Amino acid sequence: MEGKAIQDYYAEEFAHCYGCGPLNEEGMKIKSYWDGEEALCRFTPQPWHSGGVPGFAYGGLIASLIDCHGAAAASAAKLKADGFALGERPLSRFVAASLKVDYLKPAPLDTTFELRARVKEIDGRKVTVSVTLSAKGEVCATGEELFIQLQRWSVQTGYPKPLD
Amino acid sequence: MEGKAIQDYYAEEFAHCYGCGPLNEEGMKIKSYWDGEEALCRFTPQPWHSGGVPGFAYGGLIASLIDCHGAAAASAAKLKADGFALGERPLSRFVAASLKVDYLKPAPLDTTFELRARVKEIDGRKVTVSVTLSAKGEVCATGEELFIQLQRWSVQTGYPKPLD
Repeated sequence: MEGKAIQDYYAEEFAHCYGCGPLNEEGMKIKSYWDGEEALCRFTPQPWHSGGVPGFAYGGLIASLIDCHGAAAASAAKLKADGFALGERPLSRFVAASLKVDYLKPAPLDTTFELRARVKEIDGRKVTVSVTLSAKGEVCATGEELFIQLQRWSVQTGYPKPLD
Repeated sequence: MEGKAIQDYYAEEFAHCYGCGPLNEEGMKIKSYWDGEEALCRFTPQPWHSGGVPGFAYGGLIASLIDCHGAAAASAAKLKADGFALGERPLSRFVAASLKVDYLKPAPLDTTFELRARVKEIDGRKVTVSVTLSAKGEVCATGEELFIQLQRWSVQTGYPKPLD
């Protein structure tokens, strides 16, 4: 993919996530883009991302990617629902209230994962997202997430309280 | 805690997980121990484990810790249910079929997390586990997981197929 990713529009104060923060030097810096009605993220894992058996991803990596990619989809979808394109307004940051992952088959590490996120519902500050993670053309895991829009005041107080 | 952790009993072929494998040099190497009827894991996060806002954990870390700690609890509980103590028989390895995490409040990074896992049900090769993750005395996240016991033949074929 080319051009700025959704994560590149996160405000600096929200851009430190290990999974998706452009400002986290040690982090994975995943990148998500609109692809039609879905958000798409391609991520190439490293050999040390293995589960117990070498060559296949550990479950926590899969959960992390689904979580961070889903959060980007929620942010971008909320902005779009409000009538704006990326860059036209500050992007709200969303955090997961709940995450459900179903592990369907082992995800091999010697390839690039493709994650696709689809926003199912936007209800005020709540956004529900479904995500699939595929490797070599097969869906290895699916995720269902409920995200809550952070409010700026909660950051100004130094406490990212996700709910009122 | 002292002495060998549950993870230290994993067979070498299963000990490469980024979250909990003693043989993964780049990994987090979490350690879980029996504490009465629960399995206990203490984990001290690093500053780079932050979510979007510095100072609080990213969701994927919390999911990873719950997943790996729950897997250890499932392994040890299955062994105990079969009538053996740690070290008396080879420890079976379990992988998550599903993971549900509820994020209740932000988990601060300037402390040590305490994870407690309780096995709710053992049904043949299926083990259901509940986990809590606490920081500074407050429960920040809860997890519910279904684990499946790996079979040795699946590893010998190079494919850790979790289900028959």
